Amino acid sequence: MNIEELSQKILNGDRRALARAITLVESGRSDHREQASALLADLATHRRQALRIGLSGTPGVGKSTFIESFGMFLIAQGLRVAVLAVDPSSARSGGSILGDKTRMERLTRERAAFIRPSPSQSHLGGVARRSREGVALCEAAGFDVVLIETVGVGQSETVVAEMSDLFLLLLAPAGGDELQGVKRGIMEMADLILVNKADGALKPVATRTCADYAGALRLLRKRPQDPEGYPKAMMVSAIEEQGLSDAWDEMQTLTSWRRENGHWDQRRADQAQYWFDQEVRQALLAKLDTSAVRGRMAELAANVAAGEQSPSAAAQVMLAELGAS
Amino acid sequence: MNIEELSQKILNGDRRALARAITLVESGRSDHREQASALLADLATHRRQALRIGLSGTPGVGKSTFIESFGMFLIAQGLRVAVLAVDPSSARSGGSILGDKTRMERLTRERAAFIRPSPSQSHLGGVARRSREGVALCEAAGFDVVLIETVGVGQSETVVAEMSDLFLLLLAPAGGDELQGVKRGIMEMADLILVNKADGALKPVATRTCADYAGALRLLRKRPQDPEGYPKAMMVSAIEEQGLSDAWDEMQTLTSWRRENGHWDQRRADQAQYWFDQEVRQALLAKLDTSAVRGRMAELAANVAAGEQSPSAAAQVMLAELGAS
Ligand SMILES: Nc1nc2c(ncn2[C@@H]2O[C@H](COP(=O)(O)OP(=O)(O)O)[C@@H](O)[C@H]2O)c(=O)[nH]1
Ligand SMILES: Nc1nc2c(ncn2[C@@H]2O[C@H](COP(=O)(O)OP(=O)(O)O)[C@@H](O)[C@H]2O)c(=O)[nH]1
Ligand SMILES: [Mg+2]
Ligand SMILES: [Mg+2]
Repeated sequence: MNIEELSQKILNGDRRALARAITLVESGRSDHREQASALLADLATHRRQALRIGLSGTPGVGKSTFIESFGMFLIAQGLRVAVLAVDPSSARSGGSILGDKTRMERLTRERAAFIRPSPSQSHLGGVARRSREGVALCEAAGFDVVLIETVGVGQSETVVAEMSDLFLLLLAPAGGDELQGVKRGIMEMADLILVNKADGALKPVATRTCADYAGALRLLRKRPQDPEGYPKAMMVSAIEEQGLSDAWDEMQTLTSWRRENGHWDQRRADQAQYWFDQEVRQALLAKLDTSAVRGRMAELAANVAAGEQSPSAAAQVMLAELGAS
Repeated sequence: MNIEELSQKILNGDRRALARAITLVESGRSDHREQASALLADLATHRRQALRIGLSGTPGVGKSTFIESFGMFLIAQGLRVAVLAVDPSSARSGGSILGDKTRMERLTRERAAFIRPSPSQSHLGGVARRSREGVALCEAAGFDVVLIETVGVGQSETVVAEMSDLFLLLLAPAGGDELQGVKRGIMEMADLILVNKADGALKPVATRTCADYAGALRLLRKRPQDPEGYPKAMMVSAIEEQGLSDAWDEMQTLTSWRRENGHWDQRRADQAQYWFDQEVRQALLAKLDTSAVRGRMAELAANVAAGEQSPSAAAQVMLAELGAS
């Protein structure tokens, strides 16, 4: 593969070249990895940036429907939109959260849109790097907005928030005892909470849910990267395409403020350092990532849970077996 | 040191032996470490358990005052109470959050109480292990309740929550814009929120703060280890010794329920596995814990932040230098 040629094509916005490049960065082969590194290093010199919007929410909340509506809205504003997914479960299920292209029928047919499902990988660390590289490729290809979708499972929200300029949390209307649990830290990561399905019979419930979350947001510590009054909770209806323009206005207000106050660049720099640190740590911890070691860890953990060995004593045994004590 | 003799004395509730044993587990000398391991292994066979209560809150919220009042209350119920601290900053400040024994004058003089400040250590991992071992020693010495105090800094709340059967969050009354920010995940860890200083002119504010947090708690996902209606937010006054009995009732209701439903044992088993896992990981990451490596990491991180190197490329450099690539 001619990397210079591929690079040039991507910079020219060639969709097939972009798709090929994403396949390249997703490959585990070491020669592909080297080519991918060279390609990314070359593209990085052009310093093109998109607005990276992370989007999280439980299954059924309306992520796909929202991406379809919001994506079409952005395209109508003259913007080019890429959609990627970070799906920690795709390795196991073999499927993908962006498999339901049925909900993105219109967007799929748009020339100004590019949709790519999650890479399947055995661990989130691998998915994270490939997704970050996918985002970088879409930026180089000249997309204005990159939407990065994830379902709220384990650490995947953190992974997506750490590669996004804006992180949106989609919630469904829920009343009284059904109030959905907010996962640890997720509210603190959100730049905007969108209560979806604010339409028809659900509208009153959505209104109350939105007020509840607005209240909960006020209880959070004010973050330096937010102007007064942010983060906000708002209502949208992905199906009826309501509230999309207001939500976009808020996103633009927030990003303009952050750009003017240095927080945009700071966040990107912090994220780059975060990923550097993560990659070093993950490589050092990779010793634990073989099925033999996982099995032995589970055995020792069972002893520890049964009170037969102290955590420290079991750790000494494991480290000795790893040749790391 | 005769470990068998020390062990026997601790089991007999000898306070000086307990203090010596804590000094032993806090030592970094390898022969001391071996003795400590032998001692802990011996004591573990007796399987004595105390109720471990973790307690967190920002400076000035009234932790020391609460421990004094609540400790005296427990002693009046005929219970023996040990107080330990986990203080991530003690290494730097040289001081200790339990240094202010002036606020624990009465408790300090009680024979049924044992108070021990935080071990000073250079990193939280070290503090965590020594604190866990201190808790185990107090349990072996026959204390009924072990209070583990921490100030809410960085990861110290997680450390304390992961060694506690009950985790209490102490908050101060705060109104309107002064509402204190709840740190990431902290609310999800709390088994009971206590709004302190619910006395005098602060009472109405405390009432509102308590209602706000009760509302915020209802927004959290229900945890399997809680009966219906938990976790709760309550008001106390450490100074006027109000609400202590109600708070203790709630703690007892919660622990009884958990004991009956298997969650008490499950939590202890989960915590033991957590610490096993943490010790293995921390040992593998110890390569990064020298000043030379920290300096080099900072250099590379600066390049990454400046956009001169990608996170992955910089990580490769670091790993090669560590001989781990
Ligand atoms: N009433 C209503 N239903 C919606 C809305 N958005 C999505 N849905 C429905 O919610 C269900 C799940 O939507 P989907 O986009 O697949 O959710 P995802 O799992 O988060 O991607 C589908 O039946 C959608 O038609 C909305 O704005 N209003
Ligand atoms: N009004 C009132 N003041 C309290 C109460 N508890 C503690 N304080 C005061 O709050 C200040 C800090 O208390 P302290 O126990 O040292 O807080 P710590 O830093 O969390 O250990 C002191 O001036 C205490 O007298 C209370 O219940 N009511
Ligand atoms: Mg979907
Ligand atoms: Mg204090």
